[in-house]
Amino acid sequence: MATESISSLPERLTKQRPLHPLAPLTGDEIKAAAAIIKSVWPAGTDLQFKNITLEEPAKAEVIPYLDAEHAGASLPSFQRKAFINYYIRNTNKYHEATVNISSRSVESNVRLGPNLHANADGDEIVAIEKIAVEDPKVKAEIAKLQLPEGAVVVCDPWIYGSDGINDDDRLFQCFLYMRDPLNPNELDSNHYALPLPVSPVISADTLEVIRIDTLPTGADNTVKPVGPVKVYPANEYIPEAQNLRTDVKPLQVVQPEGASFTVEHQGTSTVINWQKWNFRVGFNQREGMVLYDVRYDGRSLFYRLSLSDMNIPYADPRHPYHKKSAFDLGDTGAGMMANNLKLGCDCLGSIYYLDSILSDDKGNTIDMPNVVCIHEQDAGIGWKHTNYRTGRAAVVRQRELVLQSIITVANYEYILAFQFNQAAELMYEVRATGILSTQPIDEGLTVPWGTVVHPGVLAAHHQHIFSLRIDPAIEGHSNRLVYSEALPMPRSDFNPHGNGYYATETPVATSGGLDLNTANNRVFKIQNAAVRNPVNGLPVAYKIMAPDFQKMISDEQSFNHRRAEFADRNIYLVKHNASLPPIRQDLFAGGLYTNQSRGGTGVRSWANRAEPTLDTDILLFVQFGINHVPRIEDFPVMPCEVLKVALKPVNFFDRNPALDVPQSEQRFNRSTALASQHAQPAVAATVGKAEPAAACCAAPAPGSKL
Amino acid sequence: MATESISSLPERLTKQRPLHPLAPLTGDEIKAAAAIIKSVWPAGTDLQFKNITLEEPAKAEVIPYLDAEHAGASLPSFQRKAFINYYIRNTNKYHEATVNISSRSVESNVRLGPNLHANADGDEIVAIEKIAVEDPKVKAEIAKLQLPEGAVVVCDPWIYGSDGINDDDRLFQCFLYMRDPLNPNELDSNHYALPLPVSPVISADTLEVIRIDTLPTGADNTVKPVGPVKVYPANEYIPEAQNLRTDVKPLQVVQPEGASFTVEHQGTSTVINWQKWNFRVGFNQREGMVLYDVRYDGRSLFYRLSLSDMNIPYADPRHPYHKKSAFDLGDTGAGMMANNLKLGCDCLGSIYYLDSILSDDKGNTIDMPNVVCIHEQDAGIGWKHTNYRTGRAAVVRQRELVLQSIITVANYEYILAFQFNQAAELMYEVRATGILSTQPIDEGLTVPWGTVVHPGVLAAHHQHIFSLRIDPAIEGHSNRLVYSEALPMPRSDFNPHGNGYYATETPVATSGGLDLNTANNRVFKIQNAAVRNPVNGLPVAYKIMAPDFQKMISDEQSFNHRRAEFADRNIYLVKHNASLPPIRQDLFAGGLYTNQSRGGTGVRSWANRAEPTLDTDILLFVQFGINHVPRIEDFPVMPCEVLKVALKPVNFFDRNPALDVPQSEQRFNRSTALASQHAQPAVAATVGKAEPAAACCAAPAPGSKL
Repeated sequence: MATESISSLPERLTKQRPLHPLAPLTGDEIKAAAAIIKSVWPAGTDLQFKNITLEEPAKAEVIPYLDAEHAGASLPSFQRKAFINYYIRNTNKYHEATVNISSRSVESNVRLGPNLHANADGDEIVAIEKIAVEDPKVKAEIAKLQLPEGAVVVCDPWIYGSDGINDDDRLFQCFLYMRDPLNPNELDSNHYALPLPVSPVISADTLEVIRIDTLPTGADNTVKPVGPVKVYPANEYIPEAQNLRTDVKPLQVVQPEGASFTVEHQGTSTVINWQKWNFRVGFNQREGMVLYDVRYDGRSLFYRLSLSDMNIPYADPRHPYHKKSAFDLGDTGAGMMANNLKLGCDCLGSIYYLDSILSDDKGNTIDMPNVVCIHEQDAGIGWKHTNYRTGRAAVVRQRELVLQSIITVANYEYILAFQFNQAAELMYEVRATGILSTQPIDEGLTVPWGTVVHPGVLAAHHQHIFSLRIDPAIEGHSNRLVYSEALPMPRSDFNPHGNGYYATETPVATSGGLDLNTANNRVFKIQNAAVRNPVNGLPVAYKIMAPDFQKMISDEQSFNHRRAEFADRNIYLVKHNASLPPIRQDLFAGGLYTNQSRGGTGVRSWANRAEPTLDTDILLFVQFGINHVPRIEDFPVMPCEVLKVALKPVNFFDRNPALDVPQSEQRFNRSTALASQHAQPAVAATVGKAEPAAACCAAPAPGSKL
Repeated sequence: MATESISSLPERLTKQRPLHPLAPLTGDEIKAAAAIIKSVWPAGTDLQFKNITLEEPAKAEVIPYLDAEHAGASLPSFQRKAFINYYIRNTNKYHEATVNISSRSVESNVRLGPNLHANADGDEIVAIEKIAVEDPKVKAEIAKLQLPEGAVVVCDPWIYGSDGINDDDRLFQCFLYMRDPLNPNELDSNHYALPLPVSPVISADTLEVIRIDTLPTGADNTVKPVGPVKVYPANEYIPEAQNLRTDVKPLQVVQPEGASFTVEHQGTSTVINWQKWNFRVGFNQREGMVLYDVRYDGRSLFYRLSLSDMNIPYADPRHPYHKKSAFDLGDTGAGMMANNLKLGCDCLGSIYYLDSILSDDKGNTIDMPNVVCIHEQDAGIGWKHTNYRTGRAAVVRQRELVLQSIITVANYEYILAFQFNQAAELMYEVRATGILSTQPIDEGLTVPWGTVVHPGVLAAHHQHIFSLRIDPAIEGHSNRLVYSEALPMPRSDFNPHGNGYYATETPVATSGGLDLNTANNRVFKIQNAAVRNPVNGLPVAYKIMAPDFQKMISDEQSFNHRRAEFADRNIYLVKHNASLPPIRQDLFAGGLYTNQSRGGTGVRSWANRAEPTLDTDILLFVQFGINHVPRIEDFPVMPCEVLKVALKPVNFFDRNPALDVPQSEQRFNRSTALASQHAQPAVAATVGKAEPAAACCAAPAPGSKL
């Protein structure tokens, strides 16, 4: 797509209906922003754009807008701004700029560095892959492996990581594999089953191979000379390589009257209404899905919710594996890696899709269709009680609304979903799947930092540590974090039998890192101390239910620990400065620039300011994760590992908010009773014949006698 | 139902096809067993039966049977036996007997005691309720409350609990409530919203009121004289009392070709086959659902799986609340309390129901229809990978098979489910719902051991601690428990950057209690050390993924702690004696008789034997639970709180066992793309119109080029 001239673009923009201040950049805005920044450079300067994204206005500006919006009042006008990162192409001259699209001006434009590096972009990765297998020096190394006739070598470029040794430049560490040489035309052959011991290092600035590492393949850090490799059988995940099951019967989700949610498109911003929930959806290159201004039954809950970052440090201490420590959002971008979701494949039922527009390395736009799918799902029984005296059951099902996005990060997949339910609970679910990042290992060896998942293939242990950013607005923007614990009462005349226990509540008055304490049933809550429950007088709150996990294992002096500033605590609490744009202060828990970062710019550093956090504009980073000690069952593609964080009301309502959900009844649910087909000699039932629907638990008519 | 004569019954039994040794007692067998035990007493002796259940044969006898069964060999014959508990009615003479139904003989019959008491039974509870509100002394106390005209008092009899004070007899502590006096004909009025401060204590032996307690209603343990009570408004959960939501559209689960499972009825035993899973289902008075002989793809995994018991101790230290500590299986029975599940209400989709037959207090049978529902459910994406080079996605959905049972324990409900998936994972899910057990509290008070959930209503904090019994048979009956941990490598020449970590594995050589250690990522695995993975040589295993929880808070000297012998550790490991019937050694983690128990007969005591547990017939009790600090949102009926334990293969297979699941494709899933209906001024979409199905992620034909 050609870049339009700078003069025509902003004019076109002004003719459109004003965008919401939280609306992602439109395609025209992206192109305008690129043109504006290009205009400050001499003609012909080739810029490599890394990101052109909405610079969200400061909260202090947005809040009056939201208040007016919900009150139906006239809306303040907003300057639209883009936050831009770019290089002078083929140099290490990395820049950060803010462009005011509305005024066609550059507000700031600074060169960054040293040791601040950009994320990878798609075109760059493709270029690196090509160089890694076509460079003559690499080819000479590969030749020594004496691969079989027809072998095709495939490269997975890896973010180089940091160890402080000759890593001031932006580099890629390339891991090489081959496709199944017995089936060389299969482009989807699982090359991770056939790793090779040669690893080129390529400069992202010059696109030159600067070094070729040889990988250790033994039980120690000895590096053997490159020589002929043994070729093991392939291990494919594609269906045509399997003997597929034939006995799974279809299961379909049908909504004959359509779905229960409404979608309102306001330019690039989307407003969703569902079961008393109301919120705005954005999408950007780095975070993917972002939720804004989340309300339930008209009451404010959250200003902004997003995955802030994740870190995946690996256990193998040997060069170059010790540097494997990916920040998949900061180093690449959850938005940029979002799958184009397909009907019938990635969601089940009645699905609505959201599209996005992102920027490419030339300042043009990339259409990102179907990056978010929205659907309802049944989540089993929501609540039930049977009065055993009358036999009458009251039961409702739990319906959930799901906004799902799936990202592919080279070998690996994350399925990321916000889920809402009718009990006013909001969940964030991560499903980890995809393919293990593998490396060669000599036959017959076992090592304690990884699992052999296929002959000659080691999958090193690694941690996945996620950081969910919660910008709360529980009944307003003055909130506090507290934690409750359940503690035994001491024996006394009041507690003579030793069973007594009590709940405490501790406010967190200063920014910092905090941990769970399961032994005390420690539960973190976001409270509005000024708003009290009308029945019991307790402050309204939402609690944070995140599973505990093993924090980063890398030691405190390690680059891993210094860089992943969120990975060592369950929760970080910081104070937000409402007068600054979020991206310029606290959006990203590992810092704004994670690629080959050195630490000191992330959430631990912000928390160390020890700012007061009671009844003010606080911000939470909630960590969760898994230590993935691979099983052979995780190869050649791993069954989803599911992680879930839930936000649930605590004394926010005056009763069960799902009490008004209609009863679960057969006339609504249309279930089918399966009958038996009797057979000899045993009484066998092939399940599948439908019986007429039986009477159900419907409520009697009001006033009727049971 | 009249009891048949003892002479005719066993004759009828012998004419039937031999029952499986693990088949629950048939109705005829129950009646025969009752008749046989009655025959040893003088004619006219009135027995109050508490339980007539299969005495499962010793494992050493059953294993050869199962081996023969799976080999298609001729089957050994079995004596059918009943385990029976009964009283001489209206006495404290409690008995335990084994009756050999096949030989029409009594094998053992002993009087138990002191301090061994039976579970409650249904008829008994109804009788106690009636006495509690009709006794003249109670009525006199209630009169002092000066309840409004038309008020109806309702009694919840509670298992008395133990405190060592005048509790040698079997007693019920009765809590009284009233139905909404403004709507006195509503039999399903939520009386838990209107608790009263009078609490009669009734002897289970004599059915007499032996004492009337007055409940403390303040912030200390002062007991005020009984006087007029303030009547607060009702708080109903029934739908006709709500202003119901009108915007939930139907969501139906349709299986046009039927379900994927088969059910084979073998008398009272049921064999299920689904997606390579094969297992046998039983059902009994105490445990409800029991799974036997669980296999995947013909390979043995578990001999027996069941909920062993649960304990719910309350936080209020004041008399008589300090005794609230229920064992819902041991004190009442999950089978006996199972709901009759209704189509369209308790499950969604294509449902198959299992029935059961249990015994009543007279030795007759009780038909228990629809106590288990079986269905498939979609559980989201099972695995996915996209090759970003070709854009081709491979994705399968995760189908689950669910066996669900729901129990009502007076105020409370538990939804209990075994879930199986196509990745060879087996889950046990508990959903806690129903109504909080409430007590009166003076207006305006707040206390730290409970939450005010309605004016005048306190819901005390309480713990739910569940014990899942796992009798493993991982590739045979010689198994061991190990735990793995992930630990940092010390800094060294081998680990110069401090990122290295390694996985350890520690076998548990002696019976005992064990705990999780999240900081070390401790994971428990059941291993067969003699069977090695063909690819990586590691022992085959299943890991136990149970969430950590706060153990019992009651102190170690308390009756609560002494009685709930499972509640203080995440896992108990014991050695099973294969030559004894399980019910006579180790079925129930809190002991065989939990009602007013004193401790010393449960899993902690068994584990203290310090028996060797390596590569032998081991048995595991896995604990999980919640500390329920009530929210007002949990009243008048609480949204489900979901707990889940998963058993997952670790190096048991040679690759992802779900690799052969067919791809998720539109022609199979028949999803619907929702279109927007555009509106002004904003672009609004009322979601509901279907677009034609789009092309999907179907695999290309073998050999095709992408």
